[in-house]
Amino acid sequence: MADAHAPERPLANGQTRIDFQTEPSRYRHWKLKIDGDIATLLLDVDEKGALFEGYELKLNSYDLGVDIELADVIQRLRFEHPQVRAVVLRSGKPRVFCAGANIRMLAGASHAHKVNFCKFTNETRNGIEDLSTNSGLQTICAINGTAAGGGYELALAADYIMLVDDGSSAVSLPELPLLAVLPGTGGLTRVSDKRKVRRDHADFFCTTEEGVKGKRALDWRLVDEVMPGSKFEETIAARAQEFAAKSRRDGGAQGIKLTPLTRTFSDNGVDYGSLAVEFDRSGRIATVVLRGPSEMPPTSADAMVAQGAAFWPLKLARELDDAILNIRLNEFDIAAIVFKSFGDPGKVMAYEHFLDANEDHWLVREIRHFWKRVLKRVDLTSRSLVTLIEPGSCFAGTLAELAFASDRSYMFLGRREGDNKPPAAISLAEANFGPYPMSNGLTRLGSRFLANAADLEQTESERHKMLDAERAQKLGLVTFALDDIDWDDEVRVFLEERASFSPDALTGLEANLRFAGPETMESKIFARLTAWQNWIFQRPNAVGEDGALKRYGTGQQPVFDTRRV
Amino acid sequence: MADAHAPERPLANGQTRIDFQTEPSRYRHWKLKIDGDIATLLLDVDEKGALFEGYELKLNSYDLGVDIELADVIQRLRFEHPQVRAVVLRSGKPRVFCAGANIRMLAGASHAHKVNFCKFTNETRNGIEDLSTNSGLQTICAINGTAAGGGYELALAADYIMLVDDGSSAVSLPELPLLAVLPGTGGLTRVSDKRKVRRDHADFFCTTEEGVKGKRALDWRLVDEVMPGSKFEETIAARAQEFAAKSRRDGGAQGIKLTPLTRTFSDNGVDYGSLAVEFDRSGRIATVVLRGPSEMPPTSADAMVAQGAAFWPLKLARELDDAILNIRLNEFDIAAIVFKSFGDPGKVMAYEHFLDANEDHWLVREIRHFWKRVLKRVDLTSRSLVTLIEPGSCFAGTLAELAFASDRSYMFLGRREGDNKPPAAISLAEANFGPYPMSNGLTRLGSRFLANAADLEQTESERHKMLDAERAQKLGLVTFALDDIDWDDEVRVFLEERASFSPDALTGLEANLRFAGPETMESKIFARLTAWQNWIFQRPNAVGEDGALKRYGTGQQPVFDTRRV
Repeated sequence: MADAHAPERPLANGQTRIDFQTEPSRYRHWKLKIDGDIATLLLDVDEKGALFEGYELKLNSYDLGVDIELADVIQRLRFEHPQVRAVVLRSGKPRVFCAGANIRMLAGASHAHKVNFCKFTNETRNGIEDLSTNSGLQTICAINGTAAGGGYELALAADYIMLVDDGSSAVSLPELPLLAVLPGTGGLTRVSDKRKVRRDHADFFCTTEEGVKGKRALDWRLVDEVMPGSKFEETIAARAQEFAAKSRRDGGAQGIKLTPLTRTFSDNGVDYGSLAVEFDRSGRIATVVLRGPSEMPPTSADAMVAQGAAFWPLKLARELDDAILNIRLNEFDIAAIVFKSFGDPGKVMAYEHFLDANEDHWLVREIRHFWKRVLKRVDLTSRSLVTLIEPGSCFAGTLAELAFASDRSYMFLGRREGDNKPPAAISLAEANFGPYPMSNGLTRLGSRFLANAADLEQTESERHKMLDAERAQKLGLVTFALDDIDWDDEVRVFLEERASFSPDALTGLEANLRFAGPETMESKIFARLTAWQNWIFQRPNAVGEDGALKRYGTGQQPVFDTRRV
Repeated sequence: MADAHAPERPLANGQTRIDFQTEPSRYRHWKLKIDGDIATLLLDVDEKGALFEGYELKLNSYDLGVDIELADVIQRLRFEHPQVRAVVLRSGKPRVFCAGANIRMLAGASHAHKVNFCKFTNETRNGIEDLSTNSGLQTICAINGTAAGGGYELALAADYIMLVDDGSSAVSLPELPLLAVLPGTGGLTRVSDKRKVRRDHADFFCTTEEGVKGKRALDWRLVDEVMPGSKFEETIAARAQEFAAKSRRDGGAQGIKLTPLTRTFSDNGVDYGSLAVEFDRSGRIATVVLRGPSEMPPTSADAMVAQGAAFWPLKLARELDDAILNIRLNEFDIAAIVFKSFGDPGKVMAYEHFLDANEDHWLVREIRHFWKRVLKRVDLTSRSLVTLIEPGSCFAGTLAELAFASDRSYMFLGRREGDNKPPAAISLAEANFGPYPMSNGLTRLGSRFLANAADLEQTESERHKMLDAERAQKLGLVTFALDDIDWDDEVRVFLEERASFSPDALTGLEANLRFAGPETMESKIFARLTAWQNWIFQRPNAVGEDGALKRYGTGQQPVFDTRRV
């Protein structure tokens, strides 16, 4: 294997970790302009602004750093700019929309980075679609020049794709002919399942380096509109107004500011305030401790808006999101993430009631959707997930979803000897029965109780109760309930065992068992498409010394093992 | 890559190719006993009967050779024994049901063989389920001893699993802890989606080498019944009678004989009678020429039964199935399969009418289901598929499905200069709108016209017509219609281009674009599960020199790259 035991490539500018936090004043690649209810998002990549050493971001190509900014700006459109109803996504460079993921970056990236880069970019594009579907913010992608590979895949996340018809502007997915990999950032799945391009047209399109342009692009459903270059600007303006006018987004006039997270990094962890991560590197475990709120929720929606980013559910979601991403991309050796919580379950439930009571408020809706996306990110994290529900914990409502997202959960029966913390309890709320679907479209409890709808109804009837370990186990909410005598040993043995297994086999196992039941376009991207892409990312025909990804740009043709597998 | 450019392992007994044809008198591993409407299928693997050199099939473990016999006997239960209503699947050896796929076989197999071995075994197990769902033949799996890995996966294909409760008999999926691979023969998917085992129980089960036994196996839905060893035989007998009694199988009293295929092998092809395969090895193309029937269909269902295996639709299905399997497992270097046909479309349509008119006859039902499975096999074949619809061809009804299964189709406009064959035409029949769903549950035309139901309705209204190239292209039934001037060059360039691309990237591309829309348990097995398994089959943690698959049985622990990807 080319990258087995190879070190990760050095980050640019002497950085030691990939940081997922940014803000508009620090963007190097994106520009956001807002004019009333219409925003324009300009991709204008700084060639010199690569995340890693060793390549330049030519032709609006991107790496993870570019996508971190995109994810950030999408998030800010949700929270800081609730008045925006349509976004125009376009290029800040002439004659090129976007050349896709940077090939030199891909060619030199470790397998682990490639896979997690693709996962993050997929999540960002799913987030753009979620913003449209669930928050009503329509996205128009306006292409003048070439939208190639990941460039077209970005366009595919939009609601509406416009393409200049000038004899050269084209959309293309040239990954297969050029690089011997797939259009893996949702490309194949969105072509077949979202755009519903006929399969033989899709086959032609995805094997044709130069792509498709003009009328054929329209006839084949690859774009929604073509127009001469002379009409480009006026058509964009007209479409933006039309989409804004028909948007059902009903945000406040005034957003809240997503202030920087407060993070204290140490060798063995990160403290965020409402959440702390502790690394046990020899045991290959990251423990994520969620802290319940210290205060009761605000007394009104206005008071919540005034709290802004300090509002506990929002603050915790942002911290958890950053913590998970940090583990995913910077801590490859961590085998398992252990979720713990500490706090007053009564206060956590008070926040659930507050959110339910204000469920129509734009900010509450955005916070619920954000938690949905963070929890999906947890589901898709290729680390073993375990929740330990101990005395003094507060796994209630939204926080209990982490137990249901986990591969296993252990719950403490009774009290610890010599410890006066209250016995562990789980409380269910409305949040556990609807607002946080997994990527397969089911709630986590719906997936859990796929065998028997009555079990799901039973748990629903037990909302708002404090369920002790015995009851929680009887209801099927936890895997094992253990008392003081067995707890330490059982948990330790489980975590040691987990760290002893093949990391790859666990990744495959978990990616299967977590997603029982139906598939959606979104889950197909992470299953059918991503799993095949990861396979190809291991194959010498792509990543070997003579493979297409390594030889691209060298003037040498790749040499393929001709066997069809 | 461990196996890049490595030769395939030698077959046992000096054979030069894997043969998918067998018959009961030649079985070495299975015994079929029939008693009235109940059959017993005994797995009693001959240790010395391995398909390849270099390993023995201990403990009822299996290789492709064992599974070829299983597929054969299942097929014969359909056609030769229509009176059978329940099958008991059990072991002919004491204290072991089946140890799963042979590990030494797997450890020494090329990647291409491993992947295609798994695909075939998956198809066989899907076939067992299809036999139950669609032909009403119920399967009971009776386990006394251990059903480990692929052994339990075989049990999972049954309708009902019985397990002796004796303190040692157990079901297990030890692939992950023992071998660092997945239970990839449907195991994970059937545990989560068929048995609907709760995800945390599934996690425990699939990471526990010794598996689960007795009451826990029952409580966790891993088996349907446990009983003491003393009650084993009487319970099997009782369940077999119950299942036979409630079976809705309505076969004839008398089956037909699946006589041996007549095959003539040459260096450059195989001739079967109704079908011929020609290999262009330098071009890496296999051309499959289907020959239309020379006679009109029989005049009655009884006359069809009298024709037996010579009845053209059945004969052709068997030949096509064998041809596809031969290419898949013996001809790895073939990049593309080109389907052509030659014959009288009127006679082909006459057979369609005959089958439709007799659709309730047991043999017609079995033939339709067989074609369904063969066409699914085509969909799942990792070679580029192209149909050339030329003058003199007979792509009508069932045969037209091959065009819709293809990644692309080319249709000849008008006549060839100096050739008096009738211009190419496609005819649609009822067969194109229902009886042959793909593994995603849609018909091929339904998948094709996912974007617009009206297009599908339009084609349906054009059944029973001779659709010329212009009309077929307008209806969206073919990719390109080309005239005599362009045909040869366009087709040649396309096939050369296809052979020039990375075989792996094509495999991934086709596995995505062929399956637009919904997923089913069956399609999840080939997408989510198989794609992850193939990825793992490339990873050093499994297949490297220090990997678990290579080190199994050596007494040495595997050494893992600890990075989670």
